[in-house]
Amino acid sequence: MEITKEIFYIMNIIGIVAFAMTGSLKAIKEGLDLLGITVLGVMTALGGGITRDLLINTVPNALKSLTDMSVALLGVWLAIIIYKVAKGDIGNKYYILIPDAIGLSAFTTTGALIAYNADVSFFGIVILATLTGVGGGIISDLLLGKVPSVLRDDFYASCSIIGSIGFYITITLTQDLTVSAIVCSLMVLMIRIVAILYNWRLPKFQ
Amino acid sequence: MEITKEIFYIMNIIGIVAFAMTGSLKAIKEGLDLLGITVLGVMTALGGGITRDLLINTVPNALKSLTDMSVALLGVWLAIIIYKVAKGDIGNKYYILIPDAIGLSAFTTTGALIAYNADVSFFGIVILATLTGVGGGIISDLLLGKVPSVLRDDFYASCSIIGSIGFYITITLTQDLTVSAIVCSLMVLMIRIVAILYNWRLPKFQ
Amino acid sequence: MEITKEIFYIMNIIGIVAFAMTGSLKAIKEGLDLLGITVLGVMTALGGGITRDLLINTVPNALKSLTDMSVALLGVWLAIIIYKVAKGDIGNKYYILIPDAIGLSAFTTTGALIAYNADVSFFGIVILATLTGVGGGIISDLLLGKVPSVLRDDFYASCSIIGSIGFYITITLTQDLTVSAIVCSLMVLMIRIVAILYNWRLPKFQ
Repeated sequence: MEITKEIFYIMNIIGIVAFAMTGSLKAIKEGLDLLGITVLGVMTALGGGITRDLLINTVPNALKSLTDMSVALLGVWLAIIIYKVAKGDIGNKYYILIPDAIGLSAFTTTGALIAYNADVSFFGIVILATLTGVGGGIISDLLLGKVPSVLRDDFYASCSIIGSIGFYITITLTQDLTVSAIVCSLMVLMIRIVAILYNWRLPKFQ
Repeated sequence: MEITKEIFYIMNIIGIVAFAMTGSLKAIKEGLDLLGITVLGVMTALGGGITRDLLINTVPNALKSLTDMSVALLGVWLAIIIYKVAKGDIGNKYYILIPDAIGLSAFTTTGALIAYNADVSFFGIVILATLTGVGGGIISDLLLGKVPSVLRDDFYASCSIIGSIGFYITITLTQDLTVSAIVCSLMVLMIRIVAILYNWRLPKFQ
Repeated sequence: MEITKEIFYIMNIIGIVAFAMTGSLKAIKEGLDLLGITVLGVMTALGGGITRDLLINTVPNALKSLTDMSVALLGVWLAIIIYKVAKGDIGNKYYILIPDAIGLSAFTTTGALIAYNADVSFFGIVILATLTGVGGGIISDLLLGKVPSVLRDDFYASCSIIGSIGFYITITLTQDLTVSAIVCSLMVLMIRIVAILYNWRLPKFQ
C-alpha cells in the first residue's frame, strides 16, 4: 500500500514535468512570449486536474499546494533550456513520449480515484478520469486556437477511457481501491505504448 | 402539474437527441475521429447544463445521472448511422431544426427554473437560462476553433433571452413556477420557429 | 479606510466600463451581431471575476448583483454609440489605455484580496489575482477564435503578476489588508503605464 502510494506520487511528478515540457514547447514554436510559454506549460500539466476539481466543486489542489506549480514551472524551465541550449526538438521522440505516457497513466488513475470518492455515475468516473488525463492538452490546444489534437487523431484519450472502464469494473468486483488503481494505470500505460508502437488511430466517417 | 412535468421530460429528451446529432454531424464534417465526434455530440447536448451547474456550484447532473449521457450517446450513434447509411445531410432541414427548437425551449426553461432556485439576480436568471440553451453549441464551436455561431448571426440565443425575461416577469407577477415555465417554453419555441420561417437576424454595426 | 474603499469602488467601475468598451469594439470589428457584441463586452468586463469565483467555489458575484452587469452593459452601449456616431476608433488611444490600466489595477487588487481570504497558496494568490485582471480578455479572444493577446505579446498580465507578488510580500510583512491593497494597485498601475510609454515586451525564444 505504502509503496503503491510512493510509486503513484513519482509517476505524477514525472507526468507534470513531461506535460509541462510538451505544453511549453508548443508555445515556443507558436511564437508566444515568456508568459505565454509559462501559461501553456502550467495549464498542460495542471489544467486537467483543475477542470476535474471544478466539476466536483473542490478548490483545485493546484491553487492550494506549492508542489504542483513548482514542479510544473520546473518543466517549463527545462523546456526553454533544452530548446535554447541543446537546440533539441523533443517533439515526438521516445524520451518525451514515454514520460508523457507515464503522466497520462498517473493522471487518469488519480482522476478515477477522486471521481470514485465524489460519488458520480459510471459515466462520471470515465469522464473525470479521462479529463484529468487529457484536459490540460485540450486547454493548451484551445489557447493556441487549434482543434484539440485528442479529438482529431491519435489513440490517446481512448487509453484513458479504456483504463477508467477497467477501474470501474475492478472496483465493482473487488471493492479494492489499490488493486483498481493498479489495474487502471497499467492498462492506460500499456495500451498507450502499444498505440505509439503500432501507430493506432480511431476511425473517421467523413 | 404532473402532465406538465412529463411534457418537459419528453421535450428535454428530444432536445438532447437533437443537440447531440447536430454536434456530431459538425464533428464528422470537420474530419474528427470517433472520439471527437462523441465528445462534440455529448458536449453540444450537455455542455450548456454543465456550465450552468458549474456557475451555481453544483456537481453537474450529467456526471451523476446515467440517463442524460445515455440519451446523448444515442444521438451520436444516430448521427453516425444517418450520415453513413442514409448519406443524409440533415444540417439545416426542418426535421432537425424543429427538434432543435424544442430542445432550445426545454433547456432554456430548465435553466430558468434552476437559476430561480439558486437565488440569483434578474441578470443571473437570463444568463443561466440562455447558457443552458446555447452553451453546448458555443462549447462545440470553440472546440472546432470557430467563433460561436450564436454570436455571429442567427436569431437563436435571442429566443432564450426573450423567453427567460418572460419567465422572470411571469414569476414576479404570479409566483407560480408551472405557469412561468409554460410561458417561457412557449415563448422560446414560437419565437424560434418564427425566426426560422422569416430568417430573422440581429443588427450588426460594422 | 472608508476613502480607500470608495476609491477602489470607483476604480472598479471605471475598469468595467473600459473593459466592456474594449471587448465590444473587438466584436464590432469582427462583424459579430448585437448579441455577440454584448456578450464580448460583458465577458471582457466580468469574465475574469467569474473565472476566479468558479475556481474558489463561489457563485459569481456578476450573477447575484445587478450593478456589475448594468455597468458592463453601459460600456457596451457606449462603445456602439462611439463607433456609430463618432466614427471613432478608440482601439489603442490613451483615453482607452489609461482607463483600461485603472481597471487592470482594480481587478488585480480585488482578485488578490478575495484569493487571500480563500486560503490558497502563494501561487494561488498570484494566479487568481492575475486571472481576475486578464481572464476577461483571454475569454473574449478565445470567443473570437484568436490566441489570447496577453500570451503573445505586450507587457500586460506581467503587471498583474508583479503587483500580486507585491501584495503577497506586503501582507506577509504587515498583515495589513489596506496597505497591501494600495501597494498592489499602485504597482500594477505604474508598471502598466511605464510599459505602455516604453513599449515593453517579454522575451520570446523562437
